[in-house]
Amino acid sequence: MRKVAICAPATPLKRKYAEAVAALAKAEYPEIDLHFHEQCFVEEGHFAGPDEIRLAALLNCANDPSIDAVWFAKGGYGSNRIAQAFIDHVSDAAREKSYFGYSDCGTLLGALYRAGIGQSVHAPMPVDIKRERGKDAVRRTLSYFAGDESGLEPSLGKKPAVAFNLYTLAMLVGTPLMPDLSGHEVMIEEVGEYEYAIDRLLFHVTSQLGDIAGLRLGEITAIPVNDRPFGSNAEEIAQDWCSRSGIPYLGRAQVGHSSANRIVPFGLEARGLRA
Amino acid sequence: MRKVAICAPATPLKRKYAEAVAALAKAEYPEIDLHFHEQCFVEEGHFAGPDEIRLAALLNCANDPSIDAVWFAKGGYGSNRIAQAFIDHVSDAAREKSYFGYSDCGTLLGALYRAGIGQSVHAPMPVDIKRERGKDAVRRTLSYFAGDESGLEPSLGKKPAVAFNLYTLAMLVGTPLMPDLSGHEVMIEEVGEYEYAIDRLLFHVTSQLGDIAGLRLGEITAIPVNDRPFGSNAEEIAQDWCSRSGIPYLGRAQVGHSSANRIVPFGLEARGLRA
Repeated sequence: MRKVAICAPATPLKRKYAEAVAALAKAEYPEIDLHFHEQCFVEEGHFAGPDEIRLAALLNCANDPSIDAVWFAKGGYGSNRIAQAFIDHVSDAAREKSYFGYSDCGTLLGALYRAGIGQSVHAPMPVDIKRERGKDAVRRTLSYFAGDESGLEPSLGKKPAVAFNLYTLAMLVGTPLMPDLSGHEVMIEEVGEYEYAIDRLLFHVTSQLGDIAGLRLGEITAIPVNDRPFGSNAEEIAQDWCSRSGIPYLGRAQVGHSSANRIVPFGLEARGLRA
Repeated sequence: MRKVAICAPATPLKRKYAEAVAALAKAEYPEIDLHFHEQCFVEEGHFAGPDEIRLAALLNCANDPSIDAVWFAKGGYGSNRIAQAFIDHVSDAAREKSYFGYSDCGTLLGALYRAGIGQSVHAPMPVDIKRERGKDAVRRTLSYFAGDESGLEPSLGKKPAVAFNLYTLAMLVGTPLMPDLSGHEVMIEEVGEYEYAIDRLLFHVTSQLGDIAGLRLGEITAIPVNDRPFGSNAEEIAQDWCSRSGIPYLGRAQVGHSSANRIVPFGLEARGLRA
């Protein structure tokens, strides 16, 4: 039996989504024991509770030696506000487990990766159950918990890799939480941003990732319609900034804010289950 | 007679706004000779012409020894794409003049300031004529060209100062264009961003401006309505990140995307006209 603790370092999860994920796991993955922390459902303004409550729940999950993996319930914004305090207060038990999520929670995955704590894994989250074909997305992470690696991003190869939401990565670079990505294949994805904003974020990110092995572009979804066309599409924008900064453009990746989002364990050696 | 050249390093200006500014200057400021570069009106996708055209116009204005000041017509996004090439190709004549603008063009002001080229000045732009009381905003810059310093930001004092759009500054920090702001009073303003995005941008910026003299909050306008309240307002957010990062919070400043936008010459000595 693998025990997985779920908390919400950013914004709250609706209880009905937790119930749907719990039912799916119970029906199809009897070897997985999901524990939704009550903090997932706390609401205070934008966040799933104030910083102290979210931090306490995250530490509670990470520092519990009986738990094999921590699964972030949802992104949305806010995990950066508790990331440094989290890193400063993890126990040895936190080093023995894996951490799963994406989007805003990429800040935590990046901070853990920098600190060399546990195994960070870009992966679908419980909130993805609400998407069209969302069960398939959630199954991908549950299957990975159960030892099935078929949900891994297909491009994963011999070089260390990471995957980030572009805006999240742009806010992470240059901060004390940013990991060294030298030699890494860096996958990026974005949702709900104008092309000009993607261009702007890539200006910022590529100017500071010069020694990575290359950039791989995930899904760029829900681009708002601007008052005029930008003039180039997301892949052309990525290729342009790679060219300007001397970063190899490696093509596409199946990561993004959709049910097709694949699993990317951070680093090189982690191609098997670390939960 | 002061000669001021106007170009558009980011997005195009409508000709009617150029005509309105030219008429205002002709009627009220006979000692100022405005030259709108035709590039201001070029449109290609998002931008006022492709990078090469915008760069050529900017260099044309900056490197012309007969010009006293360069005034950026409009922000909107794009000056970052030509900023490094601009710095790399300025002539000695460019070092003798002042550069006026704000918003996206803050990237150029910052890059010039870093390079020690001329005098960067945060100031209303020709496009501001379209605002309610926009003539007052444009008059503020025209009056400053004419030697009248009454439009200066009132908080300017004995410490060097800069003013930036928050998002623009967030994209500038950590890049090769970023000036050293140690000991500076840093004013920030924002338009059209959610409170959570302001929080996120301030996380990024304050983590990298630790040794500034302090932060001053300008106008935060046109905040979109989110699906739930954030839980704190823009000033509380700024105070929070200042507190977390050890940066003194200095109060408000009259800079922003409005007709009230005041003039902030970058640095310390520049409290008089440099045009």
